[in-house]
Amino acid sequence: MIIVSGMRATGKLHIGNLVTLKEWVEIQEKSPNNFFFVADWHALTSHFDSVEIIEESTLDILRHYLAVGLNPEKSVLFVQSAIKEHAELYLLLSMITSVSRLERIPTYKDQINNISDRDLTNLGFLGYPLLQAADILMYKGDIVPVGEDQIYHIEFTRETARKFNLQYREVFPEPQALISKVKKLPGTDGRKMSKSYGNIINIETNEKELKEKILPMMTDPARIRRTDPGDPEKCPVWEYHKAFTKLQDEKEWVIHGCTTASIGCVDCKKLLIRNMKEEMQPIWNNLAKISKDDAKNIALDGNEKARKVAKQTMQEVKDAMHLRW
Amino acid sequence: MIIVSGMRATGKLHIGNLVTLKEWVEIQEKSPNNFFFVADWHALTSHFDSVEIIEESTLDILRHYLAVGLNPEKSVLFVQSAIKEHAELYLLLSMITSVSRLERIPTYKDQINNISDRDLTNLGFLGYPLLQAADILMYKGDIVPVGEDQIYHIEFTRETARKFNLQYREVFPEPQALISKVKKLPGTDGRKMSKSYGNIINIETNEKELKEKILPMMTDPARIRRTDPGDPEKCPVWEYHKAFTKLQDEKEWVIHGCTTASIGCVDCKKLLIRNMKEEMQPIWNNLAKISKDDAKNIALDGNEKARKVAKQTMQEVKDAMHLRW
Repeated sequence: MIIVSGMRATGKLHIGNLVTLKEWVEIQEKSPNNFFFVADWHALTSHFDSVEIIEESTLDILRHYLAVGLNPEKSVLFVQSAIKEHAELYLLLSMITSVSRLERIPTYKDQINNISDRDLTNLGFLGYPLLQAADILMYKGDIVPVGEDQIYHIEFTRETARKFNLQYREVFPEPQALISKVKKLPGTDGRKMSKSYGNIINIETNEKELKEKILPMMTDPARIRRTDPGDPEKCPVWEYHKAFTKLQDEKEWVIHGCTTASIGCVDCKKLLIRNMKEEMQPIWNNLAKISKDDAKNIALDGNEKARKVAKQTMQEVKDAMHLRW
Repeated sequence: MIIVSGMRATGKLHIGNLVTLKEWVEIQEKSPNNFFFVADWHALTSHFDSVEIIEESTLDILRHYLAVGLNPEKSVLFVQSAIKEHAELYLLLSMITSVSRLERIPTYKDQINNISDRDLTNLGFLGYPLLQAADILMYKGDIVPVGEDQIYHIEFTRETARKFNLQYREVFPEPQALISKVKKLPGTDGRKMSKSYGNIINIETNEKELKEKILPMMTDPARIRRTDPGDPEKCPVWEYHKAFTKLQDEKEWVIHGCTTASIGCVDCKKLLIRNMKEEMQPIWNNLAKISKDDAKNIALDGNEKARKVAKQTMQEVKDAMHLRW
């Protein structure tokens, strides 16, 4: 089983990414064949005018990969733009991929219509899912851990693999999506997490900031007074508890306390802060020890390993397509 | 002055290409800095389902480059797909190139509407002019010898260079199109040269075949009887004379003879055959001596030289874009 996944280098990682990273670490402990990369080319599709952010967050994301527990002895950690072969495979696959098929991918129209603070009219953004397909197929990925919003892209990757295999020669397996077990965390105000809403908690933070973000968090709007019972399913704090509170007893204490108004929202939030801190403190300690240079050196090594596999795959691809140069 | 141009590897070269190649040789004798390549990736946009043709014609075109007089001591002769950097630059430029701008390039809509025997709905075909821009900008081309139909593509290349320079840093010069002095040769039936019409004369042919193709050529349709005067401007044979008959005396003999009906069409065609043979015989002799292996070895050497320049340009591009891996 070959596992492939990556994160876009568009800024600091937040606690939603932390949930994902912890799932990757879990996978890593069971699988000997993992490729986790930082997608800096993908970041260009929306951030072509903010390349300094991409450069900085690429190293930052690598530091987080290491701090959360991805282990370069067990997983290949690399940077997309260091492996030119991805661009080559993308170009070759673009010859058998119809423009209208790309336009019909739901995330494309969706983002074109809904994202107004970024220019997404470029060819790179239209080709985004195809570059993603190239990223996965390059390592012959079997399993791709992704969020629910990426299902269409993995289906498109499968379709691209089938198309290539049929047109030329059986080279690519069809990857499966491994959908995250945890629902996407909302922002501290209950809306979608978004830098422009200012409702994000970064992984690289500290206890003081954590308190400043969690204590004023929105809760069930119906629980106006301390004596009003609440509904956890309407409360973003409860979503955070599901991700960070491990003990069943504590979860039950929250549900019972909230629905009977026997605890206040501040009590509930204090427990969350304690549990988040407990989980994040070792990561903060690690982040404090891992410099950008450390991260860079690990990636240089990972790039070498990734490149070796990529060259092998491209040999097969080019052979199948009679491009023997 | 840096000169860059290429030909698509979609089949045998014909006498229309010969006119172009002779212009390249003329340029080569004046310029010390030339890059002439075989565009096998470009061929995929229309021939993704005929990769054997691309493979074979790539070597064949290299043989023709040499046979007509391109000299590897004076020009870098190389194969596009051997220089992965072209794919990388294409991908990077796709981030600052709008989809609608590509859709508006006249050749795109034109070919989508008029070519029915090829599937042109793929992303690669939409991106064609951008890959061409990458080919040219990679070598910082100043002058691009092309046919009239390529003017829009060079204008688009200039625009792409400006866009990059403005967004990131001054890296690319804006190339100029050098339009061919000779009008595109028609097919032997007077229509556009096209493999599907069977009206093409390949460069690699012989005197017997030349006669078989030229003698039945269509002439001015108004000249029905030997005694009817003709109008050279309505006759494809005259277009061929313009390309292959050098002596002014002979040209005047043709014009006078045709317009006064003092010569017949067969007389006129016999002169053309003699002149074409005179010009093509040395090329035939060269082609007989240049094997595919010779061509391959020359290209392997040219690829090395091209790659060195490409790596240097990509260093500047990646530096400007903060992609320092």
